Amino acid sequence: MTPMVITRVERAEASVIDRLAKLGVSTTHEAMGRSGLLQPYMRPIYPGVTVAGSAITVLAQPGDNWMIHVAIEQCRPGDVLVVAVTAPSTDGYFGDLLATSLQARGVRGLIIDAGVRDVRTLTEMNFPVWSKAVSAKGTVKATLGSVNVPVVCAGALVHPGDVVIADDDGVCVVPRKLAETVAVAGEKREANEVEKRAKLASGVLGLDLYAMREGLKKAGLVWRESIDGPDIPWPPEAR
Amino acid sequence: MTPMVITRVERAEASVIDRLAKLGVSTTHEAMGRSGLLQPYMRPIYPGVTVAGSAITVLAQPGDNWMIHVAIEQCRPGDVLVVAVTAPSTDGYFGDLLATSLQARGVRGLIIDAGVRDVRTLTEMNFPVWSKAVSAKGTVKATLGSVNVPVVCAGALVHPGDVVIADDDGVCVVPRKLAETVAVAGEKREANEVEKRAKLASGVLGLDLYAMREGLKKAGLVWRESIDGPDIPWPPEAR
Amino acid sequence: MTPMVITRVERAEASVIDRLAKLGVSTTHEAMGRSGLLQPYMRPIYPGVTVAGSAITVLAQPGDNWMIHVAIEQCRPGDVLVVAVTAPSTDGYFGDLLATSLQARGVRGLIIDAGVRDVRTLTEMNFPVWSKAVSAKGTVKATLGSVNVPVVCAGALVHPGDVVIADDDGVCVVPRKLAETVAVAGEKREANEVEKRAKLASGVLGLDLYAMREGLKKAGLVWRESIDGPDIPWPPEAR
Amino acid sequence: MTPMVITRVERAEASVIDRLAKLGVSTTHEAMGRSGLLQPYMRPIYPGVTVAGSAITVLAQPGDNWMIHVAIEQCRPGDVLVVAVTAPSTDGYFGDLLATSLQARGVRGLIIDAGVRDVRTLTEMNFPVWSKAVSAKGTVKATLGSVNVPVVCAGALVHPGDVVIADDDGVCVVPRKLAETVAVAGEKREANEVEKRAKLASGVLGLDLYAMREGLKKAGLVWRESIDGPDIPWPPEAR
Amino acid sequence: MTPMVITRVERAEASVIDRLAKLGVSTTHEAMGRSGLLQPYMRPIYPGVTVAGSAITVLAQPGDNWMIHVAIEQCRPGDVLVVAVTAPSTDGYFGDLLATSLQARGVRGLIIDAGVRDVRTLTEMNFPVWSKAVSAKGTVKATLGSVNVPVVCAGALVHPGDVVIADDDGVCVVPRKLAETVAVAGEKREANEVEKRAKLASGVLGLDLYAMREGLKKAGLVWRESIDGPDIPWPPEAR
Amino acid sequence: MTPMVITRVERAEASVIDRLAKLGVSTTHEAMGRSGLLQPYMRPIYPGVTVAGSAITVLAQPGDNWMIHVAIEQCRPGDVLVVAVTAPSTDGYFGDLLATSLQARGVRGLIIDAGVRDVRTLTEMNFPVWSKAVSAKGTVKATLGSVNVPVVCAGALVHPGDVVIADDDGVCVVPRKLAETVAVAGEKREANEVEKRAKLASGVLGLDLYAMREGLKKAGLVWRESIDGPDIPWPPEAR
Repeated sequence: MTPMVITRVERAEASVIDRLAKLGVSTTHEAMGRSGLLQPYMRPIYPGVTVAGSAITVLAQPGDNWMIHVAIEQCRPGDVLVVAVTAPSTDGYFGDLLATSLQARGVRGLIIDAGVRDVRTLTEMNFPVWSKAVSAKGTVKATLGSVNVPVVCAGALVHPGDVVIADDDGVCVVPRKLAETVAVAGEKREANEVEKRAKLASGVLGLDLYAMREGLKKAGLVWRESIDGPDIPWPPEAR
Repeated sequence: MTPMVITRVERAEASVIDRLAKLGVSTTHEAMGRSGLLQPYMRPIYPGVTVAGSAITVLAQPGDNWMIHVAIEQCRPGDVLVVAVTAPSTDGYFGDLLATSLQARGVRGLIIDAGVRDVRTLTEMNFPVWSKAVSAKGTVKATLGSVNVPVVCAGALVHPGDVVIADDDGVCVVPRKLAETVAVAGEKREANEVEKRAKLASGVLGLDLYAMREGLKKAGLVWRESIDGPDIPWPPEAR
Repeated sequence: MTPMVITRVERAEASVIDRLAKLGVSTTHEAMGRSGLLQPYMRPIYPGVTVAGSAITVLAQPGDNWMIHVAIEQCRPGDVLVVAVTAPSTDGYFGDLLATSLQARGVRGLIIDAGVRDVRTLTEMNFPVWSKAVSAKGTVKATLGSVNVPVVCAGALVHPGDVVIADDDGVCVVPRKLAETVAVAGEKREANEVEKRAKLASGVLGLDLYAMREGLKKAGLVWRESIDGPDIPWPPEAR
Repeated sequence: MTPMVITRVERAEASVIDRLAKLGVSTTHEAMGRSGLLQPYMRPIYPGVTVAGSAITVLAQPGDNWMIHVAIEQCRPGDVLVVAVTAPSTDGYFGDLLATSLQARGVRGLIIDAGVRDVRTLTEMNFPVWSKAVSAKGTVKATLGSVNVPVVCAGALVHPGDVVIADDDGVCVVPRKLAETVAVAGEKREANEVEKRAKLASGVLGLDLYAMREGLKKAGLVWRESIDGPDIPWPPEAR
Repeated sequence: MTPMVITRVERAEASVIDRLAKLGVSTTHEAMGRSGLLQPYMRPIYPGVTVAGSAITVLAQPGDNWMIHVAIEQCRPGDVLVVAVTAPSTDGYFGDLLATSLQARGVRGLIIDAGVRDVRTLTEMNFPVWSKAVSAKGTVKATLGSVNVPVVCAGALVHPGDVVIADDDGVCVVPRKLAETVAVAGEKREANEVEKRAKLASGVLGLDLYAMREGLKKAGLVWRESIDGPDIPWPPEAR
Repeated sequence: MTPMVITRVERAEASVIDRLAKLGVSTTHEAMGRSGLLQPYMRPIYPGVTVAGSAITVLAQPGDNWMIHVAIEQCRPGDVLVVAVTAPSTDGYFGDLLATSLQARGVRGLIIDAGVRDVRTLTEMNFPVWSKAVSAKGTVKATLGSVNVPVVCAGALVHPGDVVIADDDGVCVVPRKLAETVAVAGEKREANEVEKRAKLASGVLGLDLYAMREGLKKAGLVWRESIDGPDIPWPPEAR
């Protein structure tokens, strides 16, 4: 409950973070048992970038970006800044000056459950941001929040040092201690997909590749030529 | 009420579908008496594409994409897959593997009243999607829905075999039997617009081109120099 | 309460309008004491453009674009058309024919608290629009509204002749009489930022550049190595 | 595509409609295989009422209630008026005068995918309404729609003569021809629930009543005393 | 642009305000030419109350209710407090202590384009509030706004001293100088409605009462027994 | 990542829970430093109830209420069931049968970040629910989630055994270990308010009671009779 800045953050190994970046958000989220996603309203300000890094967390007050200024000092190269708010807001907490500061410290991107501004300049700077809104609305520096406490950002729990991955599909957070395990599971999944993709591209149906027909029949699915027509005896033969 | 797959779908003629594609969504919708539109929250994952094809419809359960796998077998070259859901959802029902399968069968695009993922890969594959959301959230394969039954997708009724047109303005559905009539009406409309556009570009006012002044006067519109000033006798002379 | 068209609009000086365009929306809004913004749901149909001009205002009825046709006649080169609606709507009030007409009169762009269509053509025409929605839904011409009365557009009060600035960050309106003052304040602000940006890029912290440490301490912020650990005596030495 | 009023509507038997009213929306929807629901944004203007009747459908234009006036003549005692709109709207299409007219014809309630007004008077009149919004915004009578054509209302397809059931849980539509079958299925479901409710009230667990334990175990669920603890051998014994 | 409190507010006559209260929101809004409404998301915290009074306006910063404290001193018996915010917010700016203070000064209610809390106590106190949200989220007192400047509240322009009317249908603002004229127009409208209501209750159709048939026919509406059937020659005879 | 049911939950003392119930949501949230609130979209299905209890948490899959059935067995008298979902949903996960079961075990209420149904029966049963939506949409029992793991529910982190307080203002969660401290802080706050309320009711202004005038003046607030008038020298004397 005391506003505070936690200065010691344990981070995942850089190599593991890079492996998660390669996997991307959808695969990572699946590899974690379909968990860890931020809400889908979090969208990139420009497409085509994947970012992964260690979370430096900020809990900010409504219309007040004071704690973002405080957090910058805690950032190291390879980090990603994650800003949560204590109440829903679309204000523009973040712009090109703050991005300049973060780039100077090697920060890879920003995840913010609120608004961002100067988006054209941020795009030119190649500083990626995933936000809830774009808004020019300026903020004040009047009320304390905290830095590097656990936060809930866009519906997901983020601890400082967790690995955050963001791409065009959204944002995913991997608890630091699970990072290696998730990377392994994701890579396995990815490996499988290469082969699957080739088969599907050659025209093999998922119904057959995943052996779904038996299960569908058992669950009660029927095939018919028309809604009121008779059931077709057994789908594969019917083709 | 029985979960079912209807295997026989009557489609509109390919040439008519292509004519509707050329007209685009706004003109087609006008040519149908301003009807047939899906809700405006349906947005393309990347801009600049127009797609038209015969609808293969899917009714899917919440967070469950089983029936999309089932539907693929029913698709032919020139089709568009239309996925409706039984309850509002933003989950990522569809990704690059399913798109690979659809492309292998010559499907032209996807319309889904839910979320989609792997959007960067889909963009690289040139597989266009119009969706309610982008979300990495994975789905399961556990509960049956139906394929090729009439569905309500994003507020519009779609029968299998209806023509679906999608572009940057949104998505429009044309009942199969009306396709030819709508194409003719749309082309007539379009022909008119070429001439109109030239006149407007030359500075002719729509007020005059459409002969609106009399109607506006009759409806009670007044022209004044200022809010509390006297009415200007008759607008054209006043210029 | 009478539907009317006001024909006399006082405009700001062209040079001042251009200076505001150069400042952009975020800086202008800050220079006005963080006021004048339209709601953040107003988004450009394509990115990368900044527009500033004198507002010609339209108050339109639901699903009815008659008054936009009426307003065009009142536009001069350098103007921006601002369309407000009497009830929330996402319909496509505006398309390429109207844009052709506006371009023929030298209008710089459209701000509309509703939907727009033909967005691909508008993009090709380089006619910028900021809107609440993209929708192919056509409108009628049946009910009168007004032109060049004060309107509330997306939450902001706009008088005819006010300066409207729009870019990727949103839309801002500057009362005509304040335009010069705001331009001066904004340029001063901008000048400061160049120097600041250089310092921040070199690694100077905002905490130090803006001398925030004392204030933070006074407000009660504490620095700790861990949540339950002791306070770090005084932050700067702790680094 | 021609605006029209269909004057002949086949209705379900009154006794079947009453049986569906007794079942209510949730049971009816389940009895139809979890289908037929309107979107959950449709809410009653006052709680505690269940209504069922034959649908008289209206397709209305944005901000225009002309067709509601037209539809009243087509209503008979026991009907429910269902108003769909051609574009999303929250305007107040309906108020106490229209309700007076409907009550005079024995209409049981209104379902409208838009706004309603005079809600206090409607409540005093005991005229129930399910709507998307409450709004005082008045409408015009200028553009034609249709009466008694199939419409999509709040995401559900409604044919004239379908049975519409509405209560505090929302609104459900039952195709006329299925009404009897659904009533039977729903009553069976309801009969089962009485017994179930008694058992659950006595403390029997759903896990046991529905024999779920085996399935849960098979699906891979584990019971533990703490997150990192060992699995508890077999749940029932563990209690 | 300077934060300020304006201390002199001209108010409408009490008797006119009371007449507008009697008319209610829907009638008043119609009597003003269907203008003056706040957005329909403004809802009362409890139903069944109509309030009308002179607006004391507040422009508040995000998550900051300092200016509400300042505004109370400017209130007189019969006033209504109208709180606008500089950025969208759902925070709970107002609770029972502030309501106690307002009641002590004879203020009739609160209109706030943000959140409110202590709603049960407010209900027990009979202090009516129309708000965008209910939220326990507390606010700070750190940043200045203004009191009794013109504000845009929930999409409507409100000047201090304007008459604000609120009931179950929403909130409407009447410019002070128009109050008398609007009251007269509204009362005329109301008088008409009594007679109309009696006729409609007796079964007279609006189609006939408002003589709509000719207009509908002229606009192109056709009556048919079924969608593909022939037109019915002339509707009235067809019944 | 393994789906699991944790069977051991430490709870706060009953007397502390009762003290928090007495304080209510707004006071508790303030006493925790303005933290712990669920999003304001969480609304009670009927007003006038305050509930506090120990959280039994459920993480449920989209459209699937299987884990709620599993969770009931883990509930004890005085608990509150807290249901989070892995993806946004409005489906009706919970109805009267589940409520019967929970009441049989002495559970005090339900907090669910999704939909609920049978709301009239729930109201008659006096079983309070705070939910995101009301929806008749039924769910399946097909996919595992977890019980008594930490969850994010409507934006707030909830651990099993945390104290959950819910009333007409919303829902607040207090970490179990902080419950006593927060109760003490809240009671102190409450005690202060009694006296304050009396003073405010007698007409003392908050400006004076909280000694705000000096701060306002220092921050730059000016008082004027009109917008362009001179500053009033010093507010108190000016009255």
